[in-house]
Amino acid sequence: MTVADFGVVGLAVMGRNLALNIESRGYQVALYNRSYERTADLVAKHPEKQFVPSETVADFVASIKTPRRILLMVKAGQGTDAVIDELLPHLTAGDMLIDGGNTFFEDTMRRSEKLAQSGINFIGMGVSGGELGALQGPSLMPGGQREAYELVAPILTQIAAKAPEDGKPTVTYVGPNGAGHYVKMVHNGIEYGDMQLISESYDILKRVLQLDQSALAATFSDWHQGELNSYLTEITADILTRTDDLGTGQPIVDVILDRAGNKGTGKWSSQSALAIGAPQSLITESVYARYLSAMKADRLAAAEVLTGPDFKFTGDVEATKEDIRQALYFGKIMSYAQGFDQLRMASDFYEWDLPFGELAQLWRAGAIIRAQFLQKITDAYAAQPDLHNLLLDDYFQNIAASYQAATRRVISLAVQAGIPTPSLSAAIGYYDAYRSAVLPANLIQAQRDYFGAHTYERTDRPAGEMYHYPWYDEA
Amino acid sequence: MTVADFGVVGLAVMGRNLALNIESRGYQVALYNRSYERTADLVAKHPEKQFVPSETVADFVASIKTPRRILLMVKAGQGTDAVIDELLPHLTAGDMLIDGGNTFFEDTMRRSEKLAQSGINFIGMGVSGGELGALQGPSLMPGGQREAYELVAPILTQIAAKAPEDGKPTVTYVGPNGAGHYVKMVHNGIEYGDMQLISESYDILKRVLQLDQSALAATFSDWHQGELNSYLTEITADILTRTDDLGTGQPIVDVILDRAGNKGTGKWSSQSALAIGAPQSLITESVYARYLSAMKADRLAAAEVLTGPDFKFTGDVEATKEDIRQALYFGKIMSYAQGFDQLRMASDFYEWDLPFGELAQLWRAGAIIRAQFLQKITDAYAAQPDLHNLLLDDYFQNIAASYQAATRRVISLAVQAGIPTPSLSAAIGYYDAYRSAVLPANLIQAQRDYFGAHTYERTDRPAGEMYHYPWYDEA
Repeated sequence: MTVADFGVVGLAVMGRNLALNIESRGYQVALYNRSYERTADLVAKHPEKQFVPSETVADFVASIKTPRRILLMVKAGQGTDAVIDELLPHLTAGDMLIDGGNTFFEDTMRRSEKLAQSGINFIGMGVSGGELGALQGPSLMPGGQREAYELVAPILTQIAAKAPEDGKPTVTYVGPNGAGHYVKMVHNGIEYGDMQLISESYDILKRVLQLDQSALAATFSDWHQGELNSYLTEITADILTRTDDLGTGQPIVDVILDRAGNKGTGKWSSQSALAIGAPQSLITESVYARYLSAMKADRLAAAEVLTGPDFKFTGDVEATKEDIRQALYFGKIMSYAQGFDQLRMASDFYEWDLPFGELAQLWRAGAIIRAQFLQKITDAYAAQPDLHNLLLDDYFQNIAASYQAATRRVISLAVQAGIPTPSLSAAIGYYDAYRSAVLPANLIQAQRDYFGAHTYERTDRPAGEMYHYPWYDEA
Repeated sequence: MTVADFGVVGLAVMGRNLALNIESRGYQVALYNRSYERTADLVAKHPEKQFVPSETVADFVASIKTPRRILLMVKAGQGTDAVIDELLPHLTAGDMLIDGGNTFFEDTMRRSEKLAQSGINFIGMGVSGGELGALQGPSLMPGGQREAYELVAPILTQIAAKAPEDGKPTVTYVGPNGAGHYVKMVHNGIEYGDMQLISESYDILKRVLQLDQSALAATFSDWHQGELNSYLTEITADILTRTDDLGTGQPIVDVILDRAGNKGTGKWSSQSALAIGAPQSLITESVYARYLSAMKADRLAAAEVLTGPDFKFTGDVEATKEDIRQALYFGKIMSYAQGFDQLRMASDFYEWDLPFGELAQLWRAGAIIRAQFLQKITDAYAAQPDLHNLLLDDYFQNIAASYQAATRRVISLAVQAGIPTPSLSAAIGYYDAYRSAVLPANLIQAQRDYFGAHTYERTDRPAGEMYHYPWYDEA
C-alpha cells in the first residue's frame, strides 16, 4: 500500500512530536522505529491520526509515495549511518532523506556526497525548539540540494513556527550540503553564550547585589518586558519563581547542582571557529565555563585554599541593576556579532552563500534563542544585505556606544568582587579589539620573526610583502 | 657503504641545524633531501664534517647502520606521509623513524600504529628552540615506543640544551605514540599565551601609561631581572631597543604591521582542549587575539565608527607599572595551570601517563618558553608528583593570593580605558571560577532541563542521580 506523503524514522520524543506536527497539517505519515514498540505506542495513543506504521524498513519505504520524503530523527553519529545503510537498498533515485538530528556538519557533507552517488537527495536540517517546538512549531534550518528542498518546502513551511512580527514561517533554504547543520551548530553556540551571559548576570545580582530570590525573579521578569525580551529571559524569570518539587521548601535553583552538561554542539562551533579563523571568544568562554562548572570536586578543593579579594559592595543597587541589564544586552550584541561573523567566514570557506538576513528571521520564533532582538538583526540585514559585521549597523553601533560605559562598570565591579565573568569580559575584549585600528600584535610579529624568522609585514609597504629583521648574526 | 650512525631526511634550516648539532657530538650523519642541491650545499659548506650524503632514498637507507635511526625534518602533513612511504620499502624491522616536525598528534598516533605493522618503531618528537636551538641545543619532547627511545636517547641527550639550574639535558621520554607531539602542541599554546600576555602588558604601558620607547624597553629589561626572567621577556626588551633597518629612524616595532600570523599549533591545542573538556581559556583567547589582529581591514573600518570610552589616566605611573608586572606574572601562572591541567586530562584521556614534573624540566632550556619560572613548576611537581593543579602548590597559591589585587586593578584600568586584555581577563576569570565552590551553572542546568528535559543533579543527593522538574504540563 503506497499511501503515505512523508516518512519519519526514529520515534523518540523529537521524532514523535515532529510526526504529530506533520500529520496535523493533513499529511499521511509513515512511521518506523528500530524497536516496533515505540511505533505501536504512538499509533495506539493517537488512533485518530493518519499514521502508517511499519515493522520493517522494506514495508516502511514501500508505504511512502515517490519521490519519497523521509525524515531521520535518530541519535546523531554512527546511528545515522546505520539507518541510512538500512534504508538505501530500498530507496530509488530521486528519493530524499532529511536528517533532523544534531549532526556534525562535516558528517552531513560526507553523507550528502555519498548518497548523491545513488541519486538520493540529502537534506541536513537543524531543528531548534526542544520537545514543545517540535510539536507546535520549531525553527528549521535545512541545507542540501535546492531542488530537493523545494519538494519538501510545503510541509516544512506548514510545521515551522511563525514569527510574531510578520507571520513568516521560520524555515528557509539555508544552502548546500552541511550548511543547515552548520547554522544550527552556531545557533546552539549562541544559545550557550546567551545562557552564560544570563548566568553571570544572575551571579552578580545574587553575590554582589545580594538580591533575594523574589528580587532575582522580579529582575528577570522586568528585563523580559524590554530589550532583553526573549524565551531564555522568560524561562529564567519563571525558573526563579519555582520551589523545589521534592519538598525542601527551597527555590529549585538552590538545590540544583552547579555542574553544567553539554551535548557537544557548543564545542563544535568553537572548534570550527578556530579552524576557519573566526574570533568567536564569547561562545568559547561559555563552553569553558561549563567545563569548569563540571569540575566540581576540583573547585571544592580549590575553594579551601585559594583566596579571593576583600570586597564589600557600596554602590547603588538600582543603578547597578540597570548597569547589569545594559551589560547583558551589550554582551548579547557582541555574541551575535561574533556568531554572524563566523557564519560569514564559514560561508566563504565552504562556498555556501548563506542568506544571513533570513537566518536571523529563522530564529525569531520556534528557536530556543528566539528574541525580540532578532528582529533588529533581521532589519539590519534587510537594510544592508551585505553587512560585513553587525556592529557596523546603526542600531547596534548606537547601543554599543551607549551601553559600553555600564558594561565596563559591571566588569570592573565583578573583577574587584571576585566574581568570574568570562563571557562579559569576552564581549568587551572583542568590542575593544574590533574597534582598534592598531593592536599590539606588531610586538608578537617581532617576537615570531626574532625566534623563528617567521617574517612580518610593514606599515609602510604593501600588505603581503614580507620582511625579516637582522636580530642577530645568522652566519 | 654502511657507516652512518644516524640519518636526517629534510635539510631545510631545522633539519640542517639538527644534522650539524648531531655530527658535532661525534656521529656520522647520513643526509637526504628531496632535491639533492640542498644536500650538496650543506656538505660543501662543511667539508670537515662526517656527513654521508645520498642522492637516492635507497642509498641513504643503505648508508645507515641497523637498527637505523632516521630523523624526518619535513613539512608536517602529507609531506610526512610521502617521505614515510618512500622510506618504508627500504627499511627493516627494528628500524626507527623519528618525526621532528610540528605534526598534529593524531597523525602521529595513526602513523605509529601503521608503522608498527611493519615492525618499524616511530617516535613523534616535539622540537622547540627555533633555528638557533636546533643548532646549539633544543628542547626535545619524544613520544613513542619506550625501547625505541632508549636506542636514540644517548644522541638526543647530547644534542639537547642543558638546564642552567642543574645541567640536566632538556629531553626525556614523554610517553607512547602521540604524547610527544601533544606536549609540544601544548608548549606552543603556552607560547601563544605568554606572547599575548606580554603584548597586552606592552599595550597598557604604551597606550595608558604612555611610556616612550626607551621606557618601554627599560621596563621589560627590568622585568627580565626578576620573576619574569625568560627568553620571551628578554627578546621583548631587545626588540624594543631596535631601530628600523630600512632607515625610517623609527623603532622597528612601530613599522611592523599589527597582523599576527600563526602556524596552527595554538589552534590545535585549543581544539583539543575543547575536545577533552579542559578549560584552556587563556591560550584560546590568545589564538582569537591573533585572528582579530589579522582582520586589519575590518578593524580599520570599525575604528571609524565604533566609539570608545572617554578616559584619562590619572594614577601613579610607577605603581601601575608594578601592578602590570604582577598581573603579567599572575597571568602566566594561570596559563601554565591551565596548560598543565590540559596535559593531565589528555594523559588520562589517551592513557599516556605523562611525567608532568619532567615536562617542566624539559622546557627550562632550549624551548622558546624557557624561563626561571619553570624551575618553580619543576619544584612543585618534585615536592608533589601527583599535584592535581599548579594552583594547589604553595608557591603558586601564595603568588596568586598576593598578586591578585594588582591584577584586578590592571584589568579594571584596561577595561575602563578601552584597551583589550583578553588573556589577562581569561586569567582572572579562570582563577575566580576555579576557586568558586559554587558557580551559577545551577541556573544553566535549570534552563537546559526547562527547554530540553536534559535533567540535573541535586545538591542534596548523590552525584550522578538525575532529576527532572515538572516545569510545565508535558501531556
